[in-house]
Amino acid sequence: MAMRWFYLSVLALSSLGLMCILFTVYWMQSWHGGFAWDGTIFMFNCHPVLMVAGMVVLYSAASLVYRLPQSWLGSKLPWKIAHAALHLLAFILTVLGLVAVFRYHNRANIANLYSLHSWLGITTVFLFACQWFLGFAVFLLPWASMWLRGLLKPVHVFFGASILSLAIASVISGINEKLFFSLKNATKPYSSLPGEAVFANSTGMLVVVFGLLVLYILQASSWKRPEAGAMTERQPLMHERE
Amino acid sequence: MAMRWFYLSVLALSSLGLMCILFTVYWMQSWHGGFAWDGTIFMFNCHPVLMVAGMVVLYSAASLVYRLPQSWLGSKLPWKIAHAALHLLAFILTVLGLVAVFRYHNRANIANLYSLHSWLGITTVFLFACQWFLGFAVFLLPWASMWLRGLLKPVHVFFGASILSLAIASVISGINEKLFFSLKNATKPYSSLPGEAVFANSTGMLVVVFGLLVLYILQASSWKRPEAGAMTERQPLMHERE
Repeated sequence: MAMRWFYLSVLALSSLGLMCILFTVYWMQSWHGGFAWDGTIFMFNCHPVLMVAGMVVLYSAASLVYRLPQSWLGSKLPWKIAHAALHLLAFILTVLGLVAVFRYHNRANIANLYSLHSWLGITTVFLFACQWFLGFAVFLLPWASMWLRGLLKPVHVFFGASILSLAIASVISGINEKLFFSLKNATKPYSSLPGEAVFANSTGMLVVVFGLLVLYILQASSWKRPEAGAMTERQPLMHERE
Repeated sequence: MAMRWFYLSVLALSSLGLMCILFTVYWMQSWHGGFAWDGTIFMFNCHPVLMVAGMVVLYSAASLVYRLPQSWLGSKLPWKIAHAALHLLAFILTVLGLVAVFRYHNRANIANLYSLHSWLGITTVFLFACQWFLGFAVFLLPWASMWLRGLLKPVHVFFGASILSLAIASVISGINEKLFFSLKNATKPYSSLPGEAVFANSTGMLVVVFGLLVLYILQASSWKRPEAGAMTERQPLMHERE
């Protein structure tokens, strides 16, 4: 029964993640003419898809690796490698998503990094890069002491969830911004809620629901690897302060 | 030393929260003509201030009540009342923030609730209302069983942090949206980063930093009431699933 519940949750979450990506693809395909990699507006269209796929869905999948009961038995190393590799893939998609918007902006003589969406987005990607390199150096390479790992684990876990939250805030502000741009001179403006607005708003809300479910699973104790690791996560900070 | 660190953190966090509110007031005062409660654009100017003050800063203060070591000793009841009362005050400010934008929209014949910012914002306020009433009924009124309290506590804690995260995403998309509106026909558009854009973007980033610090303190075990409550938070779900 518990396993059935677990696999149902995995199926529901995977479907929801896939829907987030497909909805974004459909939005860009149906209302903005699809995709290209040539510096035009069709290259910009890759930006929302790559960000949702990389920074939200694949990032979430990579973060949830240790919530698979299969990872709770035996050596942690293969799962650490899977965690790091999936995050690296998520990071590559994210960087491609940035390339898409920068190349489009540069070719169309549009300024880069002026909106709050872009400030928050680039900060999120920067934190993601720091998190990956620090995680790789401390938790995957064999040289860091157990003391350092114990000290940094709660920070790594906290920033893992925080970066996902910031990515969702970036996606929300990005969809909102894109709709104000694209429906500015439309016969049916954003305020009259045309089909595109309802569809893209719903895509944003779907990303929020997906993100909240991932954050819930990440912090719920019943989904965590039941081992002494849960103690090392708490003890050092408590000792340090008391 | 530990107490000195604690009071320094409280001071830093309070200053940061106050800065979030003051920056929003300064933005609306200096670039948008200040405040009124008369259905005009000056009434709209109350919206960002009341949302940042209510849904972010006061909401955070109310959430952090149990992180005060003074609350760890003796009866929990006065602290529960403080937690509920501060959240109620935060909710009242939030509702006034909604009244400010709805009355302005209605008087200026602008549609309500069309942007993704508004969809996410109204969902956040709805979740906040549900969270408050459920919290009041289950944790403050004396009739709920210990079993029900134990079952709902992790849900209450999770939604407490989630609602703050959603509020921050709403603030970010709201500031972004407001800047695209107000700098649309300006001599220096948003993309040329005039003074208002830099200031309001920075206010948004400040809200993000404040929110992350609050979320860190909320989940850090060293800030939590050291008691059996931490166990009741975990056990029921584990028993249920296993």
